[in-house]
Amino acid sequence: MPDNSQIHPFNQAVELVPTSPYTYQGHIPESYANMVGPFGGIIVAVILNGILSHKERQGNPISLTVNFAGPIADAPYDLAVRLMRTNRSNQHWIAELTQGSQVAATATAVLAIRQETWMMSEARAPDAPRPEEIESWPAPPVPQWIHRYDFKFIRGELTLSDQLAKDSESLLWVRDTPERMLDFLSLAAISDVFFPRVFIRRQQLGVASTVSITTHFHADYSSLERQANRPILAFARGQRFHRGYFDQVAELWSDEGDLLASSIQMVYFKD
Amino acid sequence: MPDNSQIHPFNQAVELVPTSPYTYQGHIPESYANMVGPFGGIIVAVILNGILSHKERQGNPISLTVNFAGPIADAPYDLAVRLMRTNRSNQHWIAELTQGSQVAATATAVLAIRQETWMMSEARAPDAPRPEEIESWPAPPVPQWIHRYDFKFIRGELTLSDQLAKDSESLLWVRDTPERMLDFLSLAAISDVFFPRVFIRRQQLGVASTVSITTHFHADYSSLERQANRPILAFARGQRFHRGYFDQVAELWSDEGDLLASSIQMVYFKD
Repeated sequence: MPDNSQIHPFNQAVELVPTSPYTYQGHIPESYANMVGPFGGIIVAVILNGILSHKERQGNPISLTVNFAGPIADAPYDLAVRLMRTNRSNQHWIAELTQGSQVAATATAVLAIRQETWMMSEARAPDAPRPEEIESWPAPPVPQWIHRYDFKFIRGELTLSDQLAKDSESLLWVRDTPERMLDFLSLAAISDVFFPRVFIRRQQLGVASTVSITTHFHADYSSLERQANRPILAFARGQRFHRGYFDQVAELWSDEGDLLASSIQMVYFKD
Repeated sequence: MPDNSQIHPFNQAVELVPTSPYTYQGHIPESYANMVGPFGGIIVAVILNGILSHKERQGNPISLTVNFAGPIADAPYDLAVRLMRTNRSNQHWIAELTQGSQVAATATAVLAIRQETWMMSEARAPDAPRPEEIESWPAPPVPQWIHRYDFKFIRGELTLSDQLAKDSESLLWVRDTPERMLDFLSLAAISDVFFPRVFIRRQQLGVASTVSITTHFHADYSSLERQANRPILAFARGQRFHRGYFDQVAELWSDEGDLLASSIQMVYFKD
């Protein structure tokens, strides 16, 4: 059975304690540690949690941008959210995550109450074998956050062969581990679940860190409920690696072929 | 000869008067009017101008997200910018555009000083005839902003045939009119130059307005100088139209085949 209770590591990691009407405090546990600071996706989820759990929140996420301004220490952080405007069917938020006097992340979000309209899925899910047919990736011991997910690579695995790959694409099935019902927070986190595209293209490790990630949500509540705790088909590719920065385009698909979210990020790297 | 002087309509439209160390006032002229309020791309450019012309600015744009919170009236607006953090090689900004007590747009930006690194262009420019081989689009009288650009459609033109098109893709050459040397501001504006994808797919007009646009910049100063005042190859497509919102993915290519910027937006629509 899916475990969606408070004791799931994801729920622990995104937990926030209100400290005023528009501020929270939290502390990302070691279980989501990356090489330097926590996994970026959990920071994205924490910020979205501060907005979605606010009593003035109206609607569900349409767009979320998080800019990573500096490393986050293994210590408590403060999250401030500001409601900028509420319209009839949408809402605009800003957020800042700080440690001491330093801003660690800034964010903006748009929430909306969706209406019934003409619908069309133009993009098509990549061809992929079913997740049951693929072995789980035997993840190395560190970083810790990779053990919070079950990765099943179809292509574009990190081999560290030191041979230039023909492209920077990865296609994989991914879900939380232990299993957990998909929600907007975990979907937002999974949009950052890909290894830096420069590592995949060059098949070598290096220095790389996301400076900005934007996720656009097509999923509504019923999409999340349908997907439940089953793996998501996740695709990522880099478009251009140019003088210290590359972009990473990502698509997250339901196992029924619906585009749940699309995401794009800019990543700092050095040789 | 390219006209890059203060009298170019684009320069007039993005002009800002400082009102305090971190605030400006401006007024977008009729020449960039859209159906309701000004062309979104000019708002994006105005906000970026407020950041790039600030005396504490360090580096060039890497990522810019603008959320449109409400319509902008044909009246002066106030723009407030906040420098959130300066690191050794990058800088984080937030901006708010207001009219009276209402927030009309919020934004975040990352600037950076680029370093020399390994480079790779993985994405390929779409095949296209040269701009000299294509007729300029005979634009209708309104909205006014479309006359600030020279559009040369290769495919995905707005025909209003009322017949469902096979996809929502458009490919075109576009440049400012009159000609103008490309800079970060005009590149940011051009990332929003596409008609709403739902109009293209359905080939009928309707209500559609961008709620969030993110542009990632691959271009540096030398890319802009090389491109000069020649047309940009611009490509856009929608991925999923779902219950009132669709996404629009865009690529802006130099005429030498370099990806200058990639952009993604979420657009509200109704039938």
